Amino acid sequence: MWYNEYGTDGDVVLSSRVRLARNLKGIPFPGRSNQEQQESVLSACRQAAETNGLKYIDLSVMEDYEKQAIAEKHLISPQMTDNGVHRGLLLSDDNKISILLNEEDHIRIQVMAAGFDLDTCFKEANRMDDALEEKMDYAFDSQIGYLTCCPTNAGTGMRASVMVHLPALTMSRTINRVIDSLNQLGVTVRGIFGEGSKATGHIYQISNQLTLGATEEDILEKFKQIVAEVVSKEREMRKRLYQTEKYRLEDRLMRSLGVLRHAVVLTSDEAMKCLSEVRLAVDLGLVTDIRPEILNAVTYEVLPANIMKEYNITDPLERDLKRAEIVRERMGSHV
Amino acid sequence: MWYNEYGTDGDVVLSSRVRLARNLKGIPFPGRSNQEQQESVLSACRQAAETNGLKYIDLSVMEDYEKQAIAEKHLISPQMTDNGVHRGLLLSDDNKISILLNEEDHIRIQVMAAGFDLDTCFKEANRMDDALEEKMDYAFDSQIGYLTCCPTNAGTGMRASVMVHLPALTMSRTINRVIDSLNQLGVTVRGIFGEGSKATGHIYQISNQLTLGATEEDILEKFKQIVAEVVSKEREMRKRLYQTEKYRLEDRLMRSLGVLRHAVVLTSDEAMKCLSEVRLAVDLGLVTDIRPEILNAVTYEVLPANIMKEYNITDPLERDLKRAEIVRERMGSHV
Repeated sequence: MWYNEYGTDGDVVLSSRVRLARNLKGIPFPGRSNQEQQESVLSACRQAAETNGLKYIDLSVMEDYEKQAIAEKHLISPQMTDNGVHRGLLLSDDNKISILLNEEDHIRIQVMAAGFDLDTCFKEANRMDDALEEKMDYAFDSQIGYLTCCPTNAGTGMRASVMVHLPALTMSRTINRVIDSLNQLGVTVRGIFGEGSKATGHIYQISNQLTLGATEEDILEKFKQIVAEVVSKEREMRKRLYQTEKYRLEDRLMRSLGVLRHAVVLTSDEAMKCLSEVRLAVDLGLVTDIRPEILNAVTYEVLPANIMKEYNITDPLERDLKRAEIVRERMGSHV
Repeated sequence: MWYNEYGTDGDVVLSSRVRLARNLKGIPFPGRSNQEQQESVLSACRQAAETNGLKYIDLSVMEDYEKQAIAEKHLISPQMTDNGVHRGLLLSDDNKISILLNEEDHIRIQVMAAGFDLDTCFKEANRMDDALEEKMDYAFDSQIGYLTCCPTNAGTGMRASVMVHLPALTMSRTINRVIDSLNQLGVTVRGIFGEGSKATGHIYQISNQLTLGATEEDILEKFKQIVAEVVSKEREMRKRLYQTEKYRLEDRLMRSLGVLRHAVVLTSDEAMKCLSEVRLAVDLGLVTDIRPEILNAVTYEVLPANIMKEYNITDPLERDLKRAEIVRERMGSHV
């Protein structure tokens, strides 16, 4: 799966995503449509996408924690877990393509890839977009472009984003300066679970704001340059931290590995924080017997809803015990 | 060596010690004697003890950290490290017998053993005492018994003590109540390095106060009963803690092992605390691949003066790095 692979620039960029927002002509946006209209969107898209190899998942019949487990993997947005609207999901076998139905817009085509690989995401999203457009009429204005529920998405309807691991910028407290300057460039920085979430595990989501008045290619090119700049800033800071505070840094990172390998009770916040520090330790060459893919995989595996779903555990203490057990095993604990 | 062996009741009693205070007739106590008198004590004792297989060590020609390293192993008292008086030490090859010369009294015969074994200590101390007395005249009063510099030691001149590991009584905060009741029974409780020291690593020194008005055997018998009581209190509390707070306790103890196996910078206080918790984990059967003797040995090995002496390191950061390295190696770190 894309979320546990180690891609290009994988030391900093965990994954890339391109999302296209589309709506069907003549049907109100999901927040204002009635049940019948919502279901017409679902069935139209389902037909169009299933012929392209995607599987349909009816979110309205799932338990909350099952939906949360999907949201934890970023295959749907957290908003998709509420039940006010009849929502659906179309998902490719490799989880790279997910089409969110009746989220804020009728259709949100998402394509994900490991590492820094927005071009592949964009190409795939376009291909899927073309396939759907063959069978449906999109709401489109020749002046504005694609029409969307929220005007900030109108035009290209495209949002590109990357999930980046910025421990050195965070530890050195330069992250806020970086976020400010990114905002001035029309780029948004959020926590790992999008709007309003914390940057647990030093993981941030960076995405473009501009969707209007430029071509997709131009927007993407500019965004890629900005991300590349963040990547090189993080790498520089890692080097500098390691040069100026070698032992303090080594001690901090290795102790995090010690926690992961020995804790008996582990919250997801602590797990994320420690996994982040071990990721940095691996990147600096301090730890050689843990593959970065394992860290990516475990980061998703230990999230609360995933543990509930995989092990049928609802008690918080039992969940923290199970999480610790999973992490010890994955980190090669010798206890 | 006695300090890294695991003896009787070794889960609680790390080591036992019997000390006899003696002075030579007609010579002022060390604090009031002149250099000539001090040296006459040294040479008289040296002659008497060397024929019994003990080696003489002249403390006045040693560096401070070398003397501190000996004090860390409890072979001399911390007071012996100052240079006001010409002091000497007679030491058996196995470090079980050490005779302190010109400490507070002219002669202090100390016999140490691993675990709870005061009888052996007493027997050996007596044997050495008889051997010395054959060749020297002790200051002795038929009413009082042996005369000592401090009246609290007069009579038998005997002090019995045990080094006990009391993590459960400490963690459960019942230790102060235990100390109070021990004090009422004429028993003193001190930190690991005697008077005024902290109970680093949950290690306490328990010793009898009474030296007068009873035979050595009676004093020893009563003291042994009291220690046995402390041992059973500690064991009960370990069981109770483990029953009532199983996961919290396991988590705490295992994380300490994680610190020992992964820390890059380690102070001696933290090392002692973590070693203590790992000792408890071993005792509870949570850790099976570490032998208790190793923990006893490392506890002494990581003390500051020992590291200075063994590795010729004076810089505090370098010492903390070396300590972490030693501990990682001894604890079987797989990093």
